[in-house]
Amino acid sequence: MKDIYIADLANFDEGKTFDGFFLVLAKQQRTTKANKPYLSLILGDKTGQLEGRVWMPDDPRIAKDFEHGDIVKARGSASRFDDRLQMKIDQIRKATTSEVDKADLLPSTTYDVVELWRQLQSFVDSFTNPDLKLLLTTLLADPALAQAYREAPAARQLHHAWLGGLLEHVVSLLTLADRVAPHYPILDRDLLMTGVILHDIGKVRELSWEVGFDYTIEGTLLGHIQMGAALAERTMDSLPNFPPKLKTLILHMILSHHGKLEFGSPKLPMIPEALVLNFLDDLDAKMQAMTGEFDKSIREGKGPDEMTGRVWALDQRQLLNTKRWLGEDKK
Amino acid sequence: MKDIYIADLANFDEGKTFDGFFLVLAKQQRTTKANKPYLSLILGDKTGQLEGRVWMPDDPRIAKDFEHGDIVKARGSASRFDDRLQMKIDQIRKATTSEVDKADLLPSTTYDVVELWRQLQSFVDSFTNPDLKLLLTTLLADPALAQAYREAPAARQLHHAWLGGLLEHVVSLLTLADRVAPHYPILDRDLLMTGVILHDIGKVRELSWEVGFDYTIEGTLLGHIQMGAALAERTMDSLPNFPPKLKTLILHMILSHHGKLEFGSPKLPMIPEALVLNFLDDLDAKMQAMTGEFDKSIREGKGPDEMTGRVWALDQRQLLNTKRWLGEDKK
Amino acid sequence: MKDIYIADLANFDEGKTFDGFFLVLAKQQRTTKANKPYLSLILGDKTGQLEGRVWMPDDPRIAKDFEHGDIVKARGSASRFDDRLQMKIDQIRKATTSEVDKADLLPSTTYDVVELWRQLQSFVDSFTNPDLKLLLTTLLADPALAQAYREAPAARQLHHAWLGGLLEHVVSLLTLADRVAPHYPILDRDLLMTGVILHDIGKVRELSWEVGFDYTIEGTLLGHIQMGAALAERTMDSLPNFPPKLKTLILHMILSHHGKLEFGSPKLPMIPEALVLNFLDDLDAKMQAMTGEFDKSIREGKGPDEMTGRVWALDQRQLLNTKRWLGEDKK
Amino acid sequence: MKDIYIADLANFDEGKTFDGFFLVLAKQQRTTKANKPYLSLILGDKTGQLEGRVWMPDDPRIAKDFEHGDIVKARGSASRFDDRLQMKIDQIRKATTSEVDKADLLPSTTYDVVELWRQLQSFVDSFTNPDLKLLLTTLLADPALAQAYREAPAARQLHHAWLGGLLEHVVSLLTLADRVAPHYPILDRDLLMTGVILHDIGKVRELSWEVGFDYTIEGTLLGHIQMGAALAERTMDSLPNFPPKLKTLILHMILSHHGKLEFGSPKLPMIPEALVLNFLDDLDAKMQAMTGEFDKSIREGKGPDEMTGRVWALDQRQLLNTKRWLGEDKK
Amino acid sequence: MKDIYIADLANFDEGKTFDGFFLVLAKQQRTTKANKPYLSLILGDKTGQLEGRVWMPDDPRIAKDFEHGDIVKARGSASRFDDRLQMKIDQIRKATTSEVDKADLLPSTTYDVVELWRQLQSFVDSFTNPDLKLLLTTLLADPALAQAYREAPAARQLHHAWLGGLLEHVVSLLTLADRVAPHYPILDRDLLMTGVILHDIGKVRELSWEVGFDYTIEGTLLGHIQMGAALAERTMDSLPNFPPKLKTLILHMILSHHGKLEFGSPKLPMIPEALVLNFLDDLDAKMQAMTGEFDKSIREGKGPDEMTGRVWALDQRQLLNTKRWLGEDKK
Amino acid sequence: MKDIYIADLANFDEGKTFDGFFLVLAKQQRTTKANKPYLSLILGDKTGQLEGRVWMPDDPRIAKDFEHGDIVKARGSASRFDDRLQMKIDQIRKATTSEVDKADLLPSTTYDVVELWRQLQSFVDSFTNPDLKLLLTTLLADPALAQAYREAPAARQLHHAWLGGLLEHVVSLLTLADRVAPHYPILDRDLLMTGVILHDIGKVRELSWEVGFDYTIEGTLLGHIQMGAALAERTMDSLPNFPPKLKTLILHMILSHHGKLEFGSPKLPMIPEALVLNFLDDLDAKMQAMTGEFDKSIREGKGPDEMTGRVWALDQRQLLNTKRWLGEDKK
Repeated sequence: MKDIYIADLANFDEGKTFDGFFLVLAKQQRTTKANKPYLSLILGDKTGQLEGRVWMPDDPRIAKDFEHGDIVKARGSASRFDDRLQMKIDQIRKATTSEVDKADLLPSTTYDVVELWRQLQSFVDSFTNPDLKLLLTTLLADPALAQAYREAPAARQLHHAWLGGLLEHVVSLLTLADRVAPHYPILDRDLLMTGVILHDIGKVRELSWEVGFDYTIEGTLLGHIQMGAALAERTMDSLPNFPPKLKTLILHMILSHHGKLEFGSPKLPMIPEALVLNFLDDLDAKMQAMTGEFDKSIREGKGPDEMTGRVWALDQRQLLNTKRWLGEDKK
Repeated sequence: MKDIYIADLANFDEGKTFDGFFLVLAKQQRTTKANKPYLSLILGDKTGQLEGRVWMPDDPRIAKDFEHGDIVKARGSASRFDDRLQMKIDQIRKATTSEVDKADLLPSTTYDVVELWRQLQSFVDSFTNPDLKLLLTTLLADPALAQAYREAPAARQLHHAWLGGLLEHVVSLLTLADRVAPHYPILDRDLLMTGVILHDIGKVRELSWEVGFDYTIEGTLLGHIQMGAALAERTMDSLPNFPPKLKTLILHMILSHHGKLEFGSPKLPMIPEALVLNFLDDLDAKMQAMTGEFDKSIREGKGPDEMTGRVWALDQRQLLNTKRWLGEDKK
Repeated sequence: MKDIYIADLANFDEGKTFDGFFLVLAKQQRTTKANKPYLSLILGDKTGQLEGRVWMPDDPRIAKDFEHGDIVKARGSASRFDDRLQMKIDQIRKATTSEVDKADLLPSTTYDVVELWRQLQSFVDSFTNPDLKLLLTTLLADPALAQAYREAPAARQLHHAWLGGLLEHVVSLLTLADRVAPHYPILDRDLLMTGVILHDIGKVRELSWEVGFDYTIEGTLLGHIQMGAALAERTMDSLPNFPPKLKTLILHMILSHHGKLEFGSPKLPMIPEALVLNFLDDLDAKMQAMTGEFDKSIREGKGPDEMTGRVWALDQRQLLNTKRWLGEDKK
Repeated sequence: MKDIYIADLANFDEGKTFDGFFLVLAKQQRTTKANKPYLSLILGDKTGQLEGRVWMPDDPRIAKDFEHGDIVKARGSASRFDDRLQMKIDQIRKATTSEVDKADLLPSTTYDVVELWRQLQSFVDSFTNPDLKLLLTTLLADPALAQAYREAPAARQLHHAWLGGLLEHVVSLLTLADRVAPHYPILDRDLLMTGVILHDIGKVRELSWEVGFDYTIEGTLLGHIQMGAALAERTMDSLPNFPPKLKTLILHMILSHHGKLEFGSPKLPMIPEALVLNFLDDLDAKMQAMTGEFDKSIREGKGPDEMTGRVWALDQRQLLNTKRWLGEDKK
Repeated sequence: MKDIYIADLANFDEGKTFDGFFLVLAKQQRTTKANKPYLSLILGDKTGQLEGRVWMPDDPRIAKDFEHGDIVKARGSASRFDDRLQMKIDQIRKATTSEVDKADLLPSTTYDVVELWRQLQSFVDSFTNPDLKLLLTTLLADPALAQAYREAPAARQLHHAWLGGLLEHVVSLLTLADRVAPHYPILDRDLLMTGVILHDIGKVRELSWEVGFDYTIEGTLLGHIQMGAALAERTMDSLPNFPPKLKTLILHMILSHHGKLEFGSPKLPMIPEALVLNFLDDLDAKMQAMTGEFDKSIREGKGPDEMTGRVWALDQRQLLNTKRWLGEDKK
Repeated sequence: MKDIYIADLANFDEGKTFDGFFLVLAKQQRTTKANKPYLSLILGDKTGQLEGRVWMPDDPRIAKDFEHGDIVKARGSASRFDDRLQMKIDQIRKATTSEVDKADLLPSTTYDVVELWRQLQSFVDSFTNPDLKLLLTTLLADPALAQAYREAPAARQLHHAWLGGLLEHVVSLLTLADRVAPHYPILDRDLLMTGVILHDIGKVRELSWEVGFDYTIEGTLLGHIQMGAALAERTMDSLPNFPPKLKTLILHMILSHHGKLEFGSPKLPMIPEALVLNFLDDLDAKMQAMTGEFDKSIREGKGPDEMTGRVWALDQRQLLNTKRWLGEDKK
């Protein structure tokens, strides 16, 4: 665990010295109004980001060799200027990934990734369809892919935009799908569960999460739907006797899971499993966004009688936390 | 049970005499190409409708006093003309509702209504919120309303368009909501279940189901959303201490359950329970439509490798019955 | 009348002392760049709002007990900082509603409310339909409702967003409807006029106008269409023999007056009176917006050859004041 | 007046001989099922259209020289075949426009065109703006244009689709605009009235009404908005000192009167007169459509408790005739 | 070449015997009005389709073993019934693909496929980029794929809906792209040409053209965009050193070539080559549709002053053949 | 050529004196935070715009008589305040258009206008249709129009928003159309080229380019489509025997060239030439926007692996410079 987090500095004594590890999100040469030059850094960790200023860039304790994307160790103090918090950096050097837990540098799931992974595998173990079980077992046994699956965020900015977010979202969806599947006899449960596990798998290639969360160029040009379909297809093609009909259905679920052409799905759901996948995926993302907004309102000190701000992920609606408004959260 | 149903006539021997009870859906004086006058009736029951022709309207065995909407008892025989089936009516008289089960005259749910009603009440019994439990108990104890709730179709033409369809749809939704609710801690389960029970209650006034399924004039001008909100509001106002916040939340769920302004909801879901209600309602209607289409394909003799026709309730998509295509339905 | 208005301070001598009554729109503890603490207040009246700073919050002449929403009496002076006008507050205390006319604290209609109310009632007196006349007489005789009807703004930000705006808008519409009604024989004039008077009545509950103009939580969750329909329905239900058909038609006009589903009307106009109401309501709102924009252009010193800025209420169009451009306004 | 109209034949004795003038709307050589050749004509007049069959095309009393679009005099008898009415034509010859009133051959306004024209001119006489008065006087003094203005339908199929329909629509709009104009001080009445008279003037070129109502090729490629603007511009350019600003405003009203880009207006209303013109034009067309639907329902024998069919001009809505439903039409 | 084509029968002497090869598009047992049973066949070839009736199904010259999709040889005669042409079938037997040229049974390109293929390859030969040249050479050298590429229609119903239509469309686009590419320096010509050749390659799997033109189940569930991307990706992966950036760009062009999400492209064009491909593809399809409509108008006997009917592929517009209207086609 | 350009000042020594000619884009009296009054000017030239402050407005070297829109000669020095560049103005006087090349004061095409004009005329010379050749020769021979055609920008802000931009865009389109026309036999090349030359001619009236680029009032109210059609119509009407069909077709091309009603075209393309004009115009504008974005990315120092920012003219897409990414631009 890190000594100090960006979020801690707000309540830190002005002038007191701190040491900490950060990601360099930006590095620029700038000048004050009074024409005094300085080096402006944007430093971040999982709790947020803040400007740090280096006033004596020629000081030997200020390294020259770090760049955007590097991890650094810095010593400095916090101060306020024009009501905004700022860091004054006295020493800085490049750090190595071994010195700090990467999970400290980017926002990450609050769940135990090992436990989430165990749940995912136990769902796969519950399959009765041997072809689908073999497909998923094969896929999740690929160490690089499994590692990426455990780390990837589910989005750059919206729902589950944190390390482990993809896995967290998938496990939530599996639990939900497991509850819903028995309600509809026309549903093939194992096929639905397979769709849940694979629908967003292209995100391990579409997004990068080394320095902040961003789209790769390939991700921008192709998208996770195409990338996920290609990855799934390659794996199915590698299995000697994978049934062609199952392959078509799985690819269809990946292609159609956004539910509308204008949301980037080239096909609309035409089988029961694809329809249910689209609904549950959308519902789970929106419920997560609601939960996040309610937490944010509490953090921001809003009262139970105040609606949230307008929420992008819910068409700019304002929301009301029912339980809190009714006083049920206090029970 | 009726002696003969419309659907049976397709395989009935031409010329053989039958007796049956039917609803009069239309009654018109017409003339053949050869200028021969006759009385044209459209007669229906729960299995369909067919034209019946009266060639001797002055025969004393042909009653004069029946009209559109009446139940009649008719004797006649089936024949084919230009490949279309037709009835020749020899005797006809007005019948009374005591002579025939109305459920035989209109399509109706295949479920046991008594059992569905029992399930509905047992869900209400499970509530821990006393205000919501009292509200629903009061409402369902109104004999006229309870009777209408058990009989009403859920729609005129689309999903659950049969007697008892509303109740069948609500019980399906309650079962589903009961599975989903524990998955999201921000949900107030009893409030969600109340929304499920009340969201379509305006349909008992919007629709009429005496003679076929149709909209009342009030239903056309006001809609079931407004009519349901008014009915719910009157009941809540009649309870001495019903909490005003609960009243607002329940009305909000009724108003917003279509999920989009362009679908006739004057408000979008702004609380977790309204969002979940909208998703589950939409999902259940679409899954029911899918199931119905798959059944229809089988009835029409389509093979497992053929997609359905274009389905209105699913944006004119064609659908594929996964289990049947995979051969899993034979297991 | 108040001694000084916010709008007057722009031309007030810097440093000269003023006294005035204001609404407290916000109250926050803040710090300058130089770490000097102060109390920041946003004070408003009907002419606008301005920041006032209290540099010595411990001075006994600075009251502690006022909050957001209170009316205060303040003594101070105006100054400019970084080109922005500001108040320095030396004394401040809570005031009572008896000390100041609330109409001075919020923007309000430029018409005489008593005269507008008289016109409204004289239109009701002109009705020949006794049921509609009784309905409106009953409604307007409720003192609390009548008071709210006279005070309510017609909107939070758009057309007629001032105290008395609802009444002003309704009387304008009544005058217009009275001119248009005889032109179409299929119109029932009294029914149309009833629709005009009741279409926005839900706004007395949807909006609050104690401290600025805002939506109530109930207003946000239910909307003025539903709230107005419920209010009208309750009143009609309270009249012993109110004709059910008239009730349906009145509710239909309230529900459909926005004219499109996507504007929040759950039903489209299906009777002549509802169609005309929707057109005149929309026309009057847009003509009021145009008039307001032309006045604003003159206030801002724009010449007759300049178009207005882009107008939100008219789809971001720019407008041209025809009469002014043609020089006819000088005649 | 014609001897017999198409609409009369429905109640005409079969076999009885009639004489009548008709428009030839189609002419085709055809064969019966039994391979018997005949000449099939579609003959029309202002009351409708019907097929007429010539069984002996070589009979000297059957002219050879008439074509689609000609007026003919025909002798024959009515008969029914397969429930459809038909004419058997025994004699037919080309007729001249002097033999029959063209108004008998196409649907035409029920108003007195001379009186409508007088009202139009009296509105122009009421103008106080000399430039606008001169413009309209000049335009309406052009005999060919005035003739076309009096004859033109207002549309091919929708509102006012009959001879004289344009004039009828414009006079209705003038009366309405004259009522509305004084209500808004920012309106220049004469400019608004000018817009009303000129907004659809391009229809005299866009439509042809010699044989049925149709679009000319020029009308299809350019549209009445462009054609009307060009016609108005040419006239204004021909007046020595017509003020350029007025010209711009008049053209803007013509261009923008459909109110939306997607309705074919290349510009949205940006002046008060254009906004009011767009609203009144749309309202008048829809009220005329409503009135027509109510008349049609009565003609078709629908009861006062039945809604109309779905109306194309009102977004496929069903409508209710308020006065008839309330029983007020009987007063 | 076939002895007789469906289109020829319209002018065939009634009763005269013909022999011909046809595709069986439907086969059904039916009954006449007079209850006479017969076998109804829909038989088709490249010029159209027609009903053929077998009145004596037990005749030994009537084969029992043919089904929907089979090629048959039939002997019969043409007759008219109720103005509709019909075939009376006296003898029928299954035929083999060796007896008849499949190109006679389905509509096919009027161009020489061998020549089109040569042009395609000569464009590939002109490439300067060795990777792209190798990719296309490899792909087109696959005999099965090359065969399918030469046969496939470009659509089921719209533009180029005939055998060889895909190849014809691609060669037209290559010629056009070759003209346009030099105009824009930012374009990589070889990359653009590669996009042209590959953009619709998925159609060889999406469509089937054995019996009429139809979508395969895989085609319906996945679409030609995904199927084409997968096919291209597999080929590129099979080339040892194919540059990954080129692979991404080629896949992006395939994914984005419909130009809009709502047209089924999961990505919008983000590189110059994809933008140009989308424009030229759309333009060429629309110009082909226009040309086809103009040909159809001439075939249907429309005059040069008549506009075409409403054209589905051009948003239901009517079109005018400029050259014909101006009389330039006669030059 | 000017001594100094706005863009040069960024790298100018602080304090060093410069002289330059500028356009006055704004002129305002303002005060500093410290209440020091000054005259604030926004001065611009073809390279950009910058604030200039006059601290001693009473100095006799500071002219009083210049206004918004005037050209001035100013002497001063550059300085930075709060990181923003600023000018301190010591002397300023009105200048005349003879002292400075107007092309230095507004952004202008990088092409040689004389050469572009020559190319335009040589395309006209290539026409074989004498009527079209005469029309264009007549039009381009009008000196005022020709001057405006050479100067006009093609837009206020989007593609080709610089002096000469209209001509540059038209010549690019002519070259492109000349390449495309032979590909489609149904195209009348001269008619298409005429459409290219005239489609945007209304912009010479819609836009003003004296002081920055802006819409005239007439341009805002009528738009370049109507203004261009009127200008073309007047010219055609002035030619004694211009064929009416050609006139209709040319006006149709002007009216429909935006391709969609919602883009302000009152008619959709219904002839081949109009369809091609719309496609090529749209393509050329988007390719120019892409080229401009790629240039801007290089100017801003973005690497070849970075996508551009979101581009307004391409639906907020990000773009990738293919050639640069592939390293082909270095060849």
